[in-house]
Order: sequence, then C-alpha cells, then structure tokens
Amino acid sequence: MNGFSARLTPSQVSKLKKSPAHIAIHEEKIGKLFTTHSPQFMGLRHSSGLWNASSYGEGVIIGMIDSGVWPESESFNEKGMPPIPTRWKGKCQNSTTNPFPCNRKLIGAQVFIKGIQAADESDSPDDSPRDFLGHGTHTSSTAAGNHVPGASQFGYANGVARGIAPGAHVAMYKVSSGGFIAESDVLAAMDQAIADGVDIMSLSLGFDHVPYFQDVIAIASLSAIEKGIFVVCSAGNDGAPNTTFNSAPWITTVGAGTLDRSFIATVTLGNDLTLEGQSKFPDRVLVVDTLLYYGKGDFEKSCSDGALNVSEVLGKVVMCDNNGSSTIFEQVRELARVEALAGILIADETLYNIDELEIPSLILPSSSGALIRKYAIEAADDASVNIMRFVLTSFGTKPAPQVAFFSSRGPDPVNPNILKPDIIAPGVEVLAAIPPIVSVEQFGNYDLGSDYAFLSGTSMSAPHVAGVAALLKAVHPEWSPAAIRSALMTTAYTVDNNGTTLTNQFTSLSGTPLDYGAGHINPNKAMDPGLIYDIDWQGYVDFLCGLGYNDTEMKAILRQSKWSCSQEGTDINYPSFVAMFSADSPKVKNFTRVLTNVGDDQSVYQLITETSQGMTIKVEPTTLTFTSKYQKQKFAASVQMNGKAPPVAYGYVKWIDQNNHIVASPVVVLNS
Amino acid sequence: MNGFSARLTPSQVSKLKKSPAHIAIHEEKIGKLFTTHSPQFMGLRHSSGLWNASSYGEGVIIGMIDSGVWPESESFNEKGMPPIPTRWKGKCQNSTTNPFPCNRKLIGAQVFIKGIQAADESDSPDDSPRDFLGHGTHTSSTAAGNHVPGASQFGYANGVARGIAPGAHVAMYKVSSGGFIAESDVLAAMDQAIADGVDIMSLSLGFDHVPYFQDVIAIASLSAIEKGIFVVCSAGNDGAPNTTFNSAPWITTVGAGTLDRSFIATVTLGNDLTLEGQSKFPDRVLVVDTLLYYGKGDFEKSCSDGALNVSEVLGKVVMCDNNGSSTIFEQVRELARVEALAGILIADETLYNIDELEIPSLILPSSSGALIRKYAIEAADDASVNIMRFVLTSFGTKPAPQVAFFSSRGPDPVNPNILKPDIIAPGVEVLAAIPPIVSVEQFGNYDLGSDYAFLSGTSMSAPHVAGVAALLKAVHPEWSPAAIRSALMTTAYTVDNNGTTLTNQFTSLSGTPLDYGAGHINPNKAMDPGLIYDIDWQGYVDFLCGLGYNDTEMKAILRQSKWSCSQEGTDINYPSFVAMFSADSPKVKNFTRVLTNVGDDQSVYQLITETSQGMTIKVEPTTLTFTSKYQKQKFAASVQMNGKAPPVAYGYVKWIDQNNHIVASPVVVLNS
Repeated sequence: MNGFSARLTPSQVSKLKKSPAHIAIHEEKIGKLFTTHSPQFMGLRHSSGLWNASSYGEGVIIGMIDSGVWPESESFNEKGMPPIPTRWKGKCQNSTTNPFPCNRKLIGAQVFIKGIQAADESDSPDDSPRDFLGHGTHTSSTAAGNHVPGASQFGYANGVARGIAPGAHVAMYKVSSGGFIAESDVLAAMDQAIADGVDIMSLSLGFDHVPYFQDVIAIASLSAIEKGIFVVCSAGNDGAPNTTFNSAPWITTVGAGTLDRSFIATVTLGNDLTLEGQSKFPDRVLVVDTLLYYGKGDFEKSCSDGALNVSEVLGKVVMCDNNGSSTIFEQVRELARVEALAGILIADETLYNIDELEIPSLILPSSSGALIRKYAIEAADDASVNIMRFVLTSFGTKPAPQVAFFSSRGPDPVNPNILKPDIIAPGVEVLAAIPPIVSVEQFGNYDLGSDYAFLSGTSMSAPHVAGVAALLKAVHPEWSPAAIRSALMTTAYTVDNNGTTLTNQFTSLSGTPLDYGAGHINPNKAMDPGLIYDIDWQGYVDFLCGLGYNDTEMKAILRQSKWSCSQEGTDINYPSFVAMFSADSPKVKNFTRVLTNVGDDQSVYQLITETSQGMTIKVEPTTLTFTSKYQKQKFAASVQMNGKAPPVAYGYVKWIDQNNHIVASPVVVLNS
Repeated sequence: MNGFSARLTPSQVSKLKKSPAHIAIHEEKIGKLFTTHSPQFMGLRHSSGLWNASSYGEGVIIGMIDSGVWPESESFNEKGMPPIPTRWKGKCQNSTTNPFPCNRKLIGAQVFIKGIQAADESDSPDDSPRDFLGHGTHTSSTAAGNHVPGASQFGYANGVARGIAPGAHVAMYKVSSGGFIAESDVLAAMDQAIADGVDIMSLSLGFDHVPYFQDVIAIASLSAIEKGIFVVCSAGNDGAPNTTFNSAPWITTVGAGTLDRSFIATVTLGNDLTLEGQSKFPDRVLVVDTLLYYGKGDFEKSCSDGALNVSEVLGKVVMCDNNGSSTIFEQVRELARVEALAGILIADETLYNIDELEIPSLILPSSSGALIRKYAIEAADDASVNIMRFVLTSFGTKPAPQVAFFSSRGPDPVNPNILKPDIIAPGVEVLAAIPPIVSVEQFGNYDLGSDYAFLSGTSMSAPHVAGVAALLKAVHPEWSPAAIRSALMTTAYTVDNNGTTLTNQFTSLSGTPLDYGAGHINPNKAMDPGLIYDIDWQGYVDFLCGLGYNDTEMKAILRQSKWSCSQEGTDINYPSFVAMFSADSPKVKNFTRVLTNVGDDQSVYQLITETSQGMTIKVEPTTLTFTSKYQKQKFAASVQMNGKAPPVAYGYVKWIDQNNHIVASPVVVLNS
C-alpha cells in the first residue's frame, strides 16, 4: 500500500525490485515535460492578468510532499523574493553533516522517512531533505521556481525557466529517499505542513485505491481543508478508464495535458527541399554534404535487422521505409550497426521515446517520406543531403492541448458519483529543474546530466495547479479551497488550438469529461469566475454521512469524535455533475447546488445547457439574480436519459452573465 | 598579399590549400574566447559607469569589415533598439534569391568580393552578406550584439551573451566568402563604410607588412580618420616579437588578453575528496560509483601507447601519471583504445586544446594527482570514484588578464618608432554568436553546431575595443579618433588580479609594453581620462612627411594631391613613447607632446616618471595647470640611457591631478 511517482534508471528499478516483497514496485509511465513554455501556454503574461494581479503569487507558501529538493538549483535562488512570512512555523533541516541551505525562496525542508526505513531496511539511511531522485526538485520548481534564463535539456526548449508562481515560497516535506513511500511518512509530512502554515499542498504521488477513511492522503487532506489549505494531487498515470487516484471531493485532482511544443530536426536534400521531422537527439550534430542512401531492394526489409551492408552505407545518410515489420528503434539499431552517419525514418504517429535513437535520426510522416523517396530514386547515385540540423524546438504544434495518453481517466473507482479528474494541466515534456547528479539520458555508455530536464506525468501537472492556486490565493486570500477549485473548474476550456473539442494523445479521438474533467486550466479566467460552487467543512461531513460510513469510519476520516449529519444523503455542492443509472433504476437524477457571487455586486446569470442525444437537463430557476457580492443563490437540476441510453453521455450546465462570465459545469451520465 | 583571420575546419583548410598558388594560406592560431563574461571582466556594469552614461552605445554605428553575418542570430535581434539614424546612407543587400533580413540592430549588409573572385576563381560565387565562416558573426556580436540569455557552447560559460555596445547599430561589409580576402575588396568596403556614415570601423584581418602607402587598410583608414571615424584593427596572431599588423599611427591596434574564466570538471573519490581540474568535454557526462584504476606498474609507461589492457580498465576511471614521455592527448587516446570510462590526467600547465580529448577526462595539477595516487594505492582494489562532473565553468581564475600567447608583439616591423600594439582587450575563449551551420567541435564522426561558440584571437579583441569606442563616442560625440584612443591608452591598466604586472600566457613571465602596449582596456576609466593626446589630420600629414615619403607615396597614402608639411620630422603627438638607440648614436631622444584638458575646468597635473635601471626621463614642465576645458598644454620630454644599456628598457610618463586622473604613457627604449 504505497507508491510514488519517480523517475528511475533501469539499474535503480532492478535494485528496487530486489527489495523485500511486501513493498510493491509501481513503475510510473514517465515521458517528459516543461516549465520554459507552460506558463505562457497557460496564458500567463507579465504585464496583465493573474501574474500581474498576484505579483507572481508573492508571499504564498506552497508545501510540496515529495522526494526532497536540490537547494542549489538556480530555480530556488531567492533573488527578488520577499522576506519569509512571520506566520511561517516550519524548519529547515540543515546540519553540518548534511548541509542544506534554505533561503527566502526555499523556506523549509524536512524529512519524513522513518516509516519507509522501518518497512524496508534496504532503503537509504539518508536523512537530508536533499533530492537524489529528481522528482521533488522538478515538481517544486514547476510550482514556484524563480526566473532562470538559459534553461534547457541539452539545448532543447532553451529559454527562461520559471515556476507558475515564481513569487511564492516553497517548503519541502521529503517522504522518499529511494523511490518508495510509506503511508505513515506521508501522514506525518502532511500534518507537519498543516502545522507549519502552508497555504497550498501539492502531492505528486498516490497509494492504491481504498475507501477515503483508509486513505492517508484523503484523511490528512481533509484536515488541511479544514484549515483552509488548498490540496492538489496528481490523478495518476494509468491512462485507462476507472483509474483516477486521489479523488476525495476535497482534493483537487489533476490529469495531464500536452503542450504546443515540438522537438524537431530538419533535413535539406541535394535539391534544396527542406523537410522537418521529430527528433530529440541530444547533440547539435551537423550533417553536411553527405550522400543519401535509399535501398532500392526489398521494401519489406528496409533497414530491418541485417538488411544493410557496411560497404554500402558507411558514412551516409540512410532513408528507411516504414515497412511495417520493424520499429524505427530497430531500424536505427541496424543503421548504427552498419555505421550509417544519420537516419531518416518514416512514422505517422507521434513517437514517445525518440530520445533513445542511437545515431542522429529524424522521423518524418509518410507524406514527406514520399518526397525523399522520389528524389532518391531520380537522383540515384548522386542523391545527397545538403544539411541535417538537430536540437530545434518549435511552437504552435496542433492540436494542443491533448489529454496525455498516460493520464488516469474516470469514472473514479472509489466513488464514481464524483467526476474525476477535476481538471487537466500541462504534464507532458515539462522542462523543470533537476539535481545535476541525476542521469537524464544515456548516450552510448555514458549517463548525461543536466540542470533542467523534461519529465512527463500527472506528477508534473499537479504542481502547475498548485502554482495557479498560489496565484489565486494571493489575489483572493478569502477564498476557500473549494472556491479556488470551483474557479479553476468552471473557467477551464475544452477546445484546443484547432478549435475542436480536446482530443486524446495518440488516438486523436475526441476526449470527454472522463478524460479531462472540467477541461484545461485557464488561470487568467479563474481569477474572475463570477460565481463559485463553495463547500465548507459541514458540506464534506454531510457528503461522508451520505456514504453511510459508521462511527469508526467517520472518526477515521474526520479525525474528530464529534460531528453532525445535517442533511444526510444530500448531494455535495460540486462544480460538476455525475448521474449513474442502472438498467432497472429510474433514469432521472436530481441535484441541488448553491452558487456564491464573487463577481460584481449586480449581476444576472442566464442558464445555458448543452446535452447529447437522449439526454435532458432541467434547471430551476433559469435566471439567477445577484444584488451583492458573496450573495448565494440556489438552483435545482435534474438530469434524465430517454430511450436507449449509450454507456456514457455528456452535457454542460452553464451560467452566463452580461459581463462575459461563463460558469460551466460538465454533466456526465453513466448508464449500466 | 592577402590574409584573413578565419576559423576553418581541417577539410576547409585542405580545400583552400589546393587553390591557385598566388594566394597564400595563413592559418590563424585560433583558441577560444567569450562575450558572456568579457563586459563584466572589463568592468562594465548596468547601473553605473560607461554603459549607463552611454545608454549602451545607443545610436552609434559600427561598421564591420569581415566575412558577413548570420542575420537570424539572436544577437542581432532589434529588441529595445532605437530607430535607424537618419544620417545612415548604407544598404541592406537583400534579395529574393538570397534573403537577408536587416533590422534596427543590423542596419546594413553589403558584399565586396569581386576582387577575390577575380583572383581566385575557385572562390564561392555567393553574393549574399550571409556569413558561412562564422568569423564576422562572432566579431559583430562581440562589438554590439543585443542581450541574449542562455547562450553557451555546449553548456560551458552559460549566461547572458551581449556585445560591448549592445545599444549600437551594426553594418556588415563582407569581404570574404571562402576565407580569402583581396585588398581591392577591403578598400572598396572601407570606402563604402565611410560613405555610408559609420562612426566606428572594426577590422579583424590583415595583409602582409608593407609601407603605409602600399597598405590598403592604412590608406582607407586614414581617409576614415579624416572623417572622424574611429578605426580599430587586430594586431595579429603571430605571437612573436616584431609581428604586429595594422600599425599605422591613426589605427588603434589591439592585442589579445585572457579572461578570468576556466572550464572545469570535478572528481570526487571514494574517500569523499573532491578535486577540480581542467576540462572542456562537450557533454554533461555523469560518471557515478565507478572503480578507479591506477596502474601500479612502470611509472614511465603510465598510459603510454599500448601500456594498458582492456580486461583491466574496461569501464573504469583510469588515472595516468605525468610520465614525461607521452602527452595527455596520447594518454587519452590509449584510454579510449582500452575502453576506459573516463580519465584523470596530470599536467601542471594550462592546456590549450582540451576540447579534443576523446573520452571524458579532466586534467589535474600534480599536487592533486599526488592525493589521488595516495588514495588509489591505499584503497587498492577498492579504489573508486563517487562522481565525476563535467561542463562546469568557474570565474576568478588567477592570474588574469595575461597577454595571449598568440598575440602579436612589438616592436612594429613597419615603423618601430610607434609602440604597437596600442592596447590589449579580451581575445581568448570569447563566447559570441556563430552561424548554426558552422562546425564548432568534432565529436566522434560528427560535427557539432552551436548558436554561440568560443573563439580566440586578436580578431576577437579588436571588436571589444570597437564596442568600447562606440560607448565613448555616445558619451563624447566631439572626441576625435585620436582622442578616443588616447583615453583608452592612458587609462589602461598593467596590473593583473594578483596585483602584479601583466604576465604572458604559458610562460608566465612578466610582460612589457611590447606585449601589451599601454595595457589592458579599462572602459569606465576611459570615459574620464582627464587629459588626451589629440592628433588632427595635419598631425598625421606631418608624421608622414617625417617618414621622407616622396610625392607619389604621399599621394597614395593621403589620397589627395595637396598637402603641406608644416613641421617636418616632428614627433607625432602619440600617447606612448619609443626611443631607438643604435650603438654609435647619441643615447638621448627628445619628444614634444601637447595635452588637451577634457576633464574639469580647473585642474593641476603633476608629473610622475617611472624608469628602469640606466634610464633617465626628463620632462619640462613638471606641473601642467589647466583653467578651462579643451585648453592645451605642451611639454617636452627627453629619454636617455646611461652606461651599458639592455636591449630593451621600459618606463612611464604619468600626469596625475587632484581628482584621481592618472594619464599614463609607456616609454620603450630599444637599444641595438
């Protein structure tokens, strides 16, 4: 019953696999991700909007529950940071044997690994908050790293790295030194963070699915929420339906989306035609004035194992056909074997691990491949390449965002009546800080290090939301955690840069709220949501009462011996709607919701509903009139399915006022 | 009779060597150099001093006579640049076949290669101002590149790259496309630059030594000086006495100095001892937890060719002794042969081409080597390396600056009566922009490209002075070219960061004015020199008259048919003094000089002289009193040698006022 989102080398994994059997190894699906571009992609700008209004999140404290942090990383320099808030009660675990310098940016760092050390004696005895995995350094710098010009991974994505809330303070609560995590450590860390006075808590880790009252993250989060601390967690990297983690309704649960950035190489042929393809080769190799080899033999065998001869291709650029029988990785291995100088490969999908190509190679779609093939055949022995260039980064990739293939999808396995994930945020190929001692990539026999590296995962998307929450907290210190989440969810967008509904990575099929929740985070809009679906402590108690928990279970989750169930069974005031219908049940579900006006004193909201075939949404009233800020208005909604219902149906309830506020909630109907 | 300071790959050189024999190939001694640090090293700061006073050289136009420029380099972005001055009459040679975008930073670009094309038909027929060599892009961005964060060569020296005058405009006059240059092209280019209205002209190239009236650079420079254009040239890279180039007394002739920056790697041994050594390995390789091999056999054969066995060292870090018989390059080749993972080499000198090491290696001084040897012997088979880290940059290297080993030295072969070089400026391992298509380094079979690269040479130091001249021009638009040079020379420093007289690179012996002229450039001091040694057009005419040129020769150099020799034979009003004595001549030389007050209205200067043994300097008067700005005062000086004179003797004439102005001139006595 433990797990952790960690980047491990194959040798680390095999080392971990030799550990005592009662600790399960759960390898995270890790791609790569980024900070140099994600604030911009999320619409954050220096002179206006949320960054400007919040002074970059100045003074807010973000507690990270993670693998420690590398304090000497430039992302944690304190340049321009305000003094440490006087309310801060946390510590910096610094010692002469384990020097660990804190400052105005990195204001606290403590270690909670007694549990895992007790459970797993092979675990490192290290008791410094220093990050030897890279995970916590990456997430912390994503949430609140300072401005660092010239950050890149081997030249890719070179630019100014900064966190989402560069004005916020960071406190690290290290719960893993070797990659494993114990529940008891996480509980201790979260309780300490609450006691220390963090404003935001971010967890890029999760344990197996259990009821809330057995789930330490749910338990400690609820205590945090009671103190007004916003808790954000990764949704998980399982990529399949029914796999969301950290889905208690007081937690903001974050899936991962892609960015509009690509890593490319170009080839210019002897006829001056220039083509652009995917590549992530880690060196700025220049291939100039080189012969181009295109095997005119058996198409089926193009560049397959043993198909080429050194004498024919040595020192040449070789083009391989997409022959359907060998992968591009196998083809490049063959090219390396016969000492080709560089490769041109054909594949129509976006490939994931293209940083593992053994020789300089780029991957072109088959449309470009056809142009090269034509040229190579016509030019015959004179076919040549003028130049191939590597380490290029392009922006504006379409479609973007997409829902990352690995992002865990709803319905939630613990409680399918709450739509999870709540939202998606950048989580693919995010560039952020890592310890310089961590291997980022292998090149031949060598490990390569870097100060910034791409990582992918919902581990990377959660700290983006933590950062945005810090910005919102700086602008609206009076907002509750539920208010912040409501603002994030009701302003999220569901249309990509092609103008169509968000699609899923790789399949390119249209996504649904089960993939992306309310949609992709939209920070500047979240600053001024108009209305919010607020939830107070009693709201969560009532929700738990409605689950039918017994006294023991209620005590476990509430961590107090007294509570009252004011309105048992009432629906929680969530900014999304789920209706589950079984074959023999009535196909109508009723909801009540309360909206709080956080916009202008005077505002009138009109209802708009969107439904799919066979679905009816009725709302009463259809106009909500507010005459003062913080005024509350109630509405009732019913969702009905008619006729033959598909397994899943989707719709929206939207409230729109005269000032362009659109308060959108997804509606999901699950029919079984 | 042509030459050019160019960075060429071996294949380019061999290609050039096959060219018609009447074009001589002169391979430049190229090391490496930098912009990310040289402004700072020269004392330039954002909020005070010359950068502040000049608004970074705003509005000044620098004409570069060079190999073209890569206009898309980030260094030539126009962000923050003022509009193109209305007085600018130059062109941007842009066409649909050769697109070349100019902007507010890069305001002009023209091509002058007809001469070289006529002389050498193998020369590229390219007629675009684009730089395919890298030289002109580097020098231009050094002089006036805009601010570019995140510039580095493969991670080394990562930082903000900027030129010395980031507010100045650049105009490129391309005189070479393939590496050769014809005199006629340089003359045409310089005349065009004069006509176009440049304020500063910078030439990092030179032709063989000839009298001024046959020297196109001297001829065109004098025309430029007549128009008030400051002309700065490289002193040459011949590194030996009597080798200065471009030494006409109206040209500012620049030698090269080192910076206080080092490129390093570290090794931490199994006993936690960390040592730092030289390295420039181009990848951020991490060598972690690896066995350390130290051959206990024949010290004399340590790592020499064939000394090691694959079975013993495969995958290990190997330490080699400085055995005195094989170079570190030979030792590393042996390590690569036996598949060692990394190398630790011993050498006590600073090594030049350490970017040519075949496997990850660092070079330690023998003092550190002894510590490793002791550990390796004690730990025996358990000897290990915890971690080796590469791509680290350190600052504060001592001593710095030193005079670059390659920097051409005086006495000047054309006219030893004028001290040359005039000054030194950073010219070793300068990081500046290069075209992305140029090979910066070889790695295995591959050429590696970069957007910024280290180059070394007086080619790199001249544009530093061009940049400073632009800053001075912006602050003092009324100063003549001679006034600007005088300010640079009389404020130059001759003491390094160890507090001792500037030394020579590699030999570490004390330098003299024949190595560094007046000393190392000191821009902030040059802004306020107190007094200047000015020279007007007639001053140069009189100097030429004094050389005994006939009418034809005078016409050739003056490019006009009328002139008058007002005071034949009179010494030119230069800010340095050279006295040449032959065995049988009287050992006294008399000088007259005129100083112009450019400081406070009221100022009183007192004389200080410094002499070496046997040398006497007499000056009359010894107090100069100024009562208004621009007032002139004359003084007479005599330099005398007594007794047995050494071949060369040095001294100083310094004028010091109550406001900390020190107006220093070197005195050199050459005895034959």
